[in-house]
Amino acid sequence: PRSYTIAVIPGDGIGLEVMPPALRCLEAAATRFGFKLEFRSFPWASCTYYLKHGTMLPSDWKELLQACDAIYFGAVGDPATVPDHISLWGSILAFRREFDQYINLRPCRLIPGVTSPLANRAGKPIDFFTVRENTEGEYSSIGGMIFEGTERETVIQNTVFTRVGVDRVIRYAFELARSRPAKKLTSATKSNGISITMPYWDQRVEEIAKEYPDVQVEKYHIDILCAHFVQRPHTFDVVVGSNLFGDILSDLGPACTGTIGIAPSANLNPSSRREDPNTPWFPSLFEPVHGSAPDIAGQGIANPVGMIWAGQMMLEHLGEKNAADAMMRAIETVLGRAKDGAGGGLNILTPDMQGKGTTEELGSAIEQEI
Amino acid sequence: PRSYTIAVIPGDGIGLEVMPPALRCLEAAATRFGFKLEFRSFPWASCTYYLKHGTMLPSDWKELLQACDAIYFGAVGDPATVPDHISLWGSILAFRREFDQYINLRPCRLIPGVTSPLANRAGKPIDFFTVRENTEGEYSSIGGMIFEGTERETVIQNTVFTRVGVDRVIRYAFELARSRPAKKLTSATKSNGISITMPYWDQRVEEIAKEYPDVQVEKYHIDILCAHFVQRPHTFDVVVGSNLFGDILSDLGPACTGTIGIAPSANLNPSSRREDPNTPWFPSLFEPVHGSAPDIAGQGIANPVGMIWAGQMMLEHLGEKNAADAMMRAIETVLGRAKDGAGGGLNILTPDMQGKGTTEELGSAIEQEI
Ligand SMILES: CC(C)[C@H](C(=O)O)[C@@H](O)C(=O)O
Ligand SMILES: CC(C)[C@H](C(=O)O)[C@@H](O)C(=O)O
Repeated sequence: PRSYTIAVIPGDGIGLEVMPPALRCLEAAATRFGFKLEFRSFPWASCTYYLKHGTMLPSDWKELLQACDAIYFGAVGDPATVPDHISLWGSILAFRREFDQYINLRPCRLIPGVTSPLANRAGKPIDFFTVRENTEGEYSSIGGMIFEGTERETVIQNTVFTRVGVDRVIRYAFELARSRPAKKLTSATKSNGISITMPYWDQRVEEIAKEYPDVQVEKYHIDILCAHFVQRPHTFDVVVGSNLFGDILSDLGPACTGTIGIAPSANLNPSSRREDPNTPWFPSLFEPVHGSAPDIAGQGIANPVGMIWAGQMMLEHLGEKNAADAMMRAIETVLGRAKDGAGGGLNILTPDMQGKGTTEELGSAIEQEI
Repeated sequence: PRSYTIAVIPGDGIGLEVMPPALRCLEAAATRFGFKLEFRSFPWASCTYYLKHGTMLPSDWKELLQACDAIYFGAVGDPATVPDHISLWGSILAFRREFDQYINLRPCRLIPGVTSPLANRAGKPIDFFTVRENTEGEYSSIGGMIFEGTERETVIQNTVFTRVGVDRVIRYAFELARSRPAKKLTSATKSNGISITMPYWDQRVEEIAKEYPDVQVEKYHIDILCAHFVQRPHTFDVVVGSNLFGDILSDLGPACTGTIGIAPSANLNPSSRREDPNTPWFPSLFEPVHGSAPDIAGQGIANPVGMIWAGQMMLEHLGEKNAADAMMRAIETVLGRAKDGAGGGLNILTPDMQGKGTTEELGSAIEQEI
């Protein structure tokens, strides 16, 4: 049977709590659809590990992860004990950079049973993807300070757009748009204010658009695009943006559908092939959008749906389309039913969804539905 | 009597249409509250002017504007004939930079009669200000391209934060927060991803916060802050951000209250004093948030409220508090009444507010109410 090795990194806080039920959901899907999953669990890329060892990662982290087909990541961070720049740049941001996971893909969708904060949205389907550049741009880390401690103190940071980096994310977004019924691509820009990098982005979008005459393209400045996410989210199909703009839009979109607590995030290197002996293997990483949430950690009430949905994206990426579809249906069925008062009703939803259930209860309900 | 000279720049598109009724509202306020307004109208800083003269501004534009107490600006831009980087950097962005209008202040408020796209907001008051750095940061315009036309093509742009630039906007925001009942300041950051400039911003906020122990301070990364604007806009009081983050938040906020079509924007140099002979006089500029809207220009149906509300902020800035309050009340009264079906009902609202009225009709209704 088909078989996949999965690196499992629970991380910190609620990452440790949502991981076990999510693994059970994945196992249920594997059993039902006849493939095998081998989980390799790693305690590092966590603040707990850092506080013991003084580093976020062991020296052989790359080899350990490259021996796997995909990385399944919980959440990292505990600002009370470890500064963010150590915990994040020593884990998730290092993985994105080192494994060249140049696509960050996030679905934005109305889910049955989840209440959107927007009025009058109930009837209109919202279903789009944000495609974010995930390795360069505004997250370059180059720059510095001059005249420190004086009135002239000046701090500069470079935004770096490379042809390779910009083209591949735009092309990925066009391919995704082409594969969907609406075939529409929205590009986020700010070329009227950010006058060097953003006009370049626009120019690459225009150039690559010529290869996709079947895809409808539009561009909006990030300020008004954010406003449109609130005003007419149902009109978007695929939205592409730089590292920073994609970051903003991929939180704002799910906020508009009410799914920010349960949204998943795929950090993809779509060109790396494990079977190709001539290039290094760079596995992709799947994580919930939410963080480690120190404020509710340890109470067993974290919502496991983001972690499970991230697993769903992982199965889809591994080629297990039927299993992925079944997982998505299970999530939608359980949440929809609960809101209707059936299947345990509010008792199985976690408190963030106005329920009284636990991580375990909600996770088990989805597992059984798979 | 008190008297003020106002530079009036209608600009392009609907700027030309919303200006006349807005000037009549200002005149009504001046008459009622006993001061004089002298309007000096300038046709430049418009694409029409550019197409005739090949420049956006006459050579003596600075002196002409510096002879005034404030600048009242309509809207600029006509991308079909003049590229944005010429029209915007040759007008509004040049004014901000040259007159060191380092504060961009925008109210975000639920207005009676205006429908917010957010559910269940009707009962909860939303009333906050965004304070945006308006001269530096991400809008630096320094950078360039290397390896043009090759696979190695790389484009770099610098974000520049100066101590002076960062401190003064943060301090302004603290002062504003201190003057309000809630005394709360929210700072937008992204120090977990933008690892040089944004930690510096955070550090300056922390430092300056020590001078304002009476103000409650919180900071959020821009991605989750955008989500919170949708989820709980009623909890904000004063929100401060860099040039880019402030730009985004000051569109997103009014989108959440439904006021993006009618919101005003004040570009302030709060330290320049006209009466001080030792420093140059840098007038402040007041404009609606909306642009020139070429798509509806010429039809007489543009909403004049943004322009009128910008005038309201101008009077407040000039020290005419009572007149400013009266203008605000007039806007709220007319819009609220119209939605209730009274005072002409939908017939006086412009189409963007689901009405059948014209720019002139809505403008006159407000003028009469003042
Ligand atoms: C027109 C544009 C350059 C401008 C900006 O980004 O500053 C506008 O969006 C604004 O907010 O005033
Ligand atoms: C934790 C943080 C650095 C990260 C980012 O900004 O990329 C997060 O917000 C995300 O979107 O995955």
